[in-house]
Amino acid sequence: MSQPGVTAGRLAKAPENFLAPADIARVFAEGRGGRRDFIRRAFAVATAAGAPAALAATGDPVILQLPVHSKGLGLPVVTDGYGRPSKHEANVQRRLSPGLTQTTQASVSFAPLQSLFGIVTPSGLHFERHHQGWWDVEPSAHRLMINGSDDRIVRRPLVFTMDELMRLPPVSRFHFIECGANSGMEWGNVAVPTVQYTHGMLSCSEFTGVPLNLLLDMAGVDAKRGRFILAEGADGSSMTRTVPMALVDSGEVLVAYGQNGEMLRPENGYPLRLVVPGVQGVSWVKYLRRIEVGDQPYGTKDETLHYVDLMPDGLHRQYTSTQECKSVVTTPSGGQVLLEHGFHNISGLAWSGRGKVKRVDVSVDGGRHWRMARLESPVLSKCLTRFNIDWTWDGKPALVMSRATDETGHVQPSIRQLRAVRGTRSIYHNNAVQTWLVQENGEVSNVQLA
Amino acid sequence: MSQPGVTAGRLAKAPENFLAPADIARVFAEGRGGRRDFIRRAFAVATAAGAPAALAATGDPVILQLPVHSKGLGLPVVTDGYGRPSKHEANVQRRLSPGLTQTTQASVSFAPLQSLFGIVTPSGLHFERHHQGWWDVEPSAHRLMINGSDDRIVRRPLVFTMDELMRLPPVSRFHFIECGANSGMEWGNVAVPTVQYTHGMLSCSEFTGVPLNLLLDMAGVDAKRGRFILAEGADGSSMTRTVPMALVDSGEVLVAYGQNGEMLRPENGYPLRLVVPGVQGVSWVKYLRRIEVGDQPYGTKDETLHYVDLMPDGLHRQYTSTQECKSVVTTPSGGQVLLEHGFHNISGLAWSGRGKVKRVDVSVDGGRHWRMARLESPVLSKCLTRFNIDWTWDGKPALVMSRATDETGHVQPSIRQLRAVRGTRSIYHNNAVQTWLVQENGEVSNVQLA
Repeated sequence: MSQPGVTAGRLAKAPENFLAPADIARVFAEGRGGRRDFIRRAFAVATAAGAPAALAATGDPVILQLPVHSKGLGLPVVTDGYGRPSKHEANVQRRLSPGLTQTTQASVSFAPLQSLFGIVTPSGLHFERHHQGWWDVEPSAHRLMINGSDDRIVRRPLVFTMDELMRLPPVSRFHFIECGANSGMEWGNVAVPTVQYTHGMLSCSEFTGVPLNLLLDMAGVDAKRGRFILAEGADGSSMTRTVPMALVDSGEVLVAYGQNGEMLRPENGYPLRLVVPGVQGVSWVKYLRRIEVGDQPYGTKDETLHYVDLMPDGLHRQYTSTQECKSVVTTPSGGQVLLEHGFHNISGLAWSGRGKVKRVDVSVDGGRHWRMARLESPVLSKCLTRFNIDWTWDGKPALVMSRATDETGHVQPSIRQLRAVRGTRSIYHNNAVQTWLVQENGEVSNVQLA
Repeated sequence: MSQPGVTAGRLAKAPENFLAPADIARVFAEGRGGRRDFIRRAFAVATAAGAPAALAATGDPVILQLPVHSKGLGLPVVTDGYGRPSKHEANVQRRLSPGLTQTTQASVSFAPLQSLFGIVTPSGLHFERHHQGWWDVEPSAHRLMINGSDDRIVRRPLVFTMDELMRLPPVSRFHFIECGANSGMEWGNVAVPTVQYTHGMLSCSEFTGVPLNLLLDMAGVDAKRGRFILAEGADGSSMTRTVPMALVDSGEVLVAYGQNGEMLRPENGYPLRLVVPGVQGVSWVKYLRRIEVGDQPYGTKDETLHYVDLMPDGLHRQYTSTQECKSVVTTPSGGQVLLEHGFHNISGLAWSGRGKVKRVDVSVDGGRHWRMARLESPVLSKCLTRFNIDWTWDGKPALVMSRATDETGHVQPSIRQLRAVRGTRSIYHNNAVQTWLVQENGEVSNVQLA
């Protein structure tokens, strides 16, 4: 399973262009060319909001026309019983990568990480990965069956309706979900342009459901022989994945119906999916209709032919399911442009399939110097963690990187370190450090350091 | 400010109809009339999902037609770049209470708490409270001004664009927001029928923004004289509220642009609102355009005439802004029907404007016996906390209640205890225990115990 644990190295003295919080006010003021006379500018600009044409040509303070929203009667409540984002945010969408797949039903849409804050992914922007398209399944007709590979391994096979599942004791937990192929294009030196496409098969939600081990207890599983489960989806892709019983026994694996406070979205498996915290998304089987308990791994097509790692010696590694410690800077990131020198917050996401993120270090000089970022709370196990760090950009080219360490001590490797072990012919399980180049003109792009 | 601290009383021995987790399998099986022959039923029902007409009349196991979603090609990715809930969930909406207000612009919509899981409120279901309607404000024209009530109290008044604010160091935090008038109808023995209307002016989000104290530092506030701020919104309602500087100094008060990972929704103040954790929603000024620093409370209309507490002696209490410790059972709740005897999970929400929820006790017999519920993690300060507790309903009438205790020791009072101090003529700040009556026919309704 393991990618090489690499050492974080000594944290060098912070270079000059990292900023202490106490200096922010000074740098910010410098970046705007000083603050003299701003009370005059202030009133002019504040009152001009929405009515810029009314600015006095002299620049003198004048009382200007208020914008329409400060004078009129707005829209009523329940204009939309289920609300939508602002029309000004219409560009914040999940997107597919044209040509990445042969059909748009067996395809991917990427979450716009560059536009997101905090750790929750809005369900409307959650990445999609379908193997035979998505469905809006009728929940009253949906069933979940629990059975064994033979009559003795599950003594009381059961079939649940959604109503029956939703009456059982639920738990609610925040977890990330990442496709095993996330960042897969980077193996081959294809510098995908934006973080939406490099890392956007990643989302994070509060999931609500019933621990699978409760259902298995109800079904009377033979604890000695029941060492693996097979999860099976109801869509036409015959999606079936093996999950070791040790994970189920931990109580972490959920048969989930809730996501971010409401029912799962149809694109994400409504009305029922498996939640396997820390494990790649393909195991979180959507439209979940059946759990079979067996005494050995099932070796299905999606764990023997797909989602495997082609190693330099020509052999495939299978069942490398845990998503290792990883992070990425989302601001600034590829495709963005820094319009001004001066203060810029650097923000990003870190996560580990092994537990909690312990620390994130950030470099702006291609890894020569590192400084520890601030982690936003809460820091939860197998969940995204948001990090932020202050930076003032001096206008010179910068190489921006983040490197996460999890509570097991695993340090996110460089792409060079990862290739030394894994070679270059993989698709899946790339958790390498991502580098963004900020050019002198402010344009940010994806680069790979040799 | 304070509502009376009441004692929790001795926790009595659990009555028989509370269920230990180990008994769930037994009770569940009894509730469905036994589990014999279910493997036959199982295959019949599982394969019949979506094709019930094909059930064999004999009830014998037969291989039936698969549902269409198990055979066909589904919908492509990015069918909707910003996704929507399932069509089967169309009834889960925020709703207004007809006749509650004279116009629908100065009105309220309530969040459907009975349908929500966990602690995150989907932004599309976040409650609304507008004083003069909502607007989709153009963010590039929006400004935030920081000034003082005189020239010396703020030495460097500032005006920020949205771009400037979003470059500053942000924080992300989960907090509840509750309207001060939530549960207000209950003061007058008006038994509003559902939890959507009794408690639905309550939502919880991950907010992202800049701590206000950073902006005030940048503006050079006189720490001795600057003891209060006035927050002013840009909509036509002239919404202005005083916030004590002590709250701002704590770093908790945010100038927020992000909500649940994306930009604020227009109904919730896009592009900028104040976040004042633990304090009633009216202080979370939407479309925030100005912060003034002063040396005394401002006594605006919305803190002297509205959002005040009419006490039994005829005087008004003002500035009772903190939302005290409170909880409510959301399942089962008014308007729902229990269709079967047997196991039912009881679930609800607890919160406190003073900090973390420490415990929640649940009663099913009108407060004679209480038992401690399970709190879902994470338990965060000034944030909703989800609780769950097992229950098997024996078919007799039940009075279901929850009672929260926060980390300061404040115990949620009964409505009788609250009225003994506050009288019956209030509108705001009702944090009393809510009681739901489960009748023998399974119907659940809102009752007030004498």
